[in-house]
Amino acid sequence: MNHFSITDIEGLDKIFRLNLINSCTGYKSANLIGTKSKAGISNVAVFSSVTHFGSNPAILGFVLRPATVPRNTYANILETGYYTINHIFEDIISDAHHTSAKYSEEVSEFNQTSLIEEYKPNFKTPFVFNSPVQIGMRFLEEMPIQINGTILILGEVIDLFVREDLLQKDGFIDLTKGKTATINGLDAYAIPSTEARFDYQRPKTK
Amino acid sequence: MNHFSITDIEGLDKIFRLNLINSCTGYKSANLIGTKSKAGISNVAVFSSVTHFGSNPAILGFVLRPATVPRNTYANILETGYYTINHIFEDIISDAHHTSAKYSEEVSEFNQTSLIEEYKPNFKTPFVFNSPVQIGMRFLEEMPIQINGTILILGEVIDLFVREDLLQKDGFIDLTKGKTATINGLDAYAIPSTEARFDYQRPKTK
Repeated sequence: MNHFSITDIEGLDKIFRLNLINSCTGYKSANLIGTKSKAGISNVAVFSSVTHFGSNPAILGFVLRPATVPRNTYANILETGYYTINHIFEDIISDAHHTSAKYSEEVSEFNQTSLIEEYKPNFKTPFVFNSPVQIGMRFLEEMPIQINGTILILGEVIDLFVREDLLQKDGFIDLTKGKTATINGLDAYAIPSTEARFDYQRPKTK
Repeated sequence: MNHFSITDIEGLDKIFRLNLINSCTGYKSANLIGTKSKAGISNVAVFSSVTHFGSNPAILGFVLRPATVPRNTYANILETGYYTINHIFEDIISDAHHTSAKYSEEVSEFNQTSLIEEYKPNFKTPFVFNSPVQIGMRFLEEMPIQINGTILILGEVIDLFVREDLLQKDGFIDLTKGKTATINGLDAYAIPSTEARFDYQRPKTK
């Protein structure tokens, strides 16, 4: 196997290190986060760090680097207190990835791609039209990560929309039916097509 | 689409809610975290929340609920300061999922499954043999999430092992070649088989 010690990692070329460390966690969630500024400019950006933090209350987190692309996302969330999380699916992968380009805050990525804003009753922040799972989020808190200046954003699910053919009787959302994407590293997208479910596990008895 | 408001979510049957909210983030990383107690008992447990927090330094996080299964993982990390992250791959999915069973701290899951402990030079904590990506981690800090009692564990990559056929010239790890798994919800596993990589994105010019 290839071995990279911490000293090796520190000495790597920057792009090599970015690819390596971003790939080493395994597959990541692929979501578009939608926001809107107080001035009315909407924003949508790809994030691969949306993570489950709890089901009751339903809390999701994601990581952002305030000094880079998604600062519009960050500013809008702090301004309004709301954002949306939308699954990236097969048909929009290319447009979704393009939202990683560094547009200025006056530009809506909805106008630079074929992604379409969708508005729902009682929610002023845009969802991504046709996304098989759309989540309306209320901002809860930000947790600064001192060691590298990233920020963990925590929010609560307040409106969850799931396309009907994905939802199973026990609450499980079958992501293969929505052709939901998963991200490998910084720039690779896969669409898993089959999966196996397992039972609840109990210790083996002798 | 099915719509669940925050009030609907609060009123759901517990199992339905667990399945629903655990599925709504999209695909998750599938890893086994290996630890060893000071008393010498090894432990391995499945986690779907390993997330990238930074590449330089290389920082990964994961979420744990101290009141439930993975408390051995937590106690061992605090005792020794080290843990390993190992990709779950096709051949070990069933055994990996079984580590979610609630064994007591005197029992090593390595003895209850076909998973095999692997030791590397200068690292006392067990890796999972044959895993295509194995990461030796040093504990950095724990961040308590006040709202629900979960804990974000942050650590630094100090030894990264990548099977040679997965590693590309630019540092990208091709997870499809390792048959690395991804998790949907609490109990479904998929093996993505094809993926598309995209270029670095710049704003479109008129």
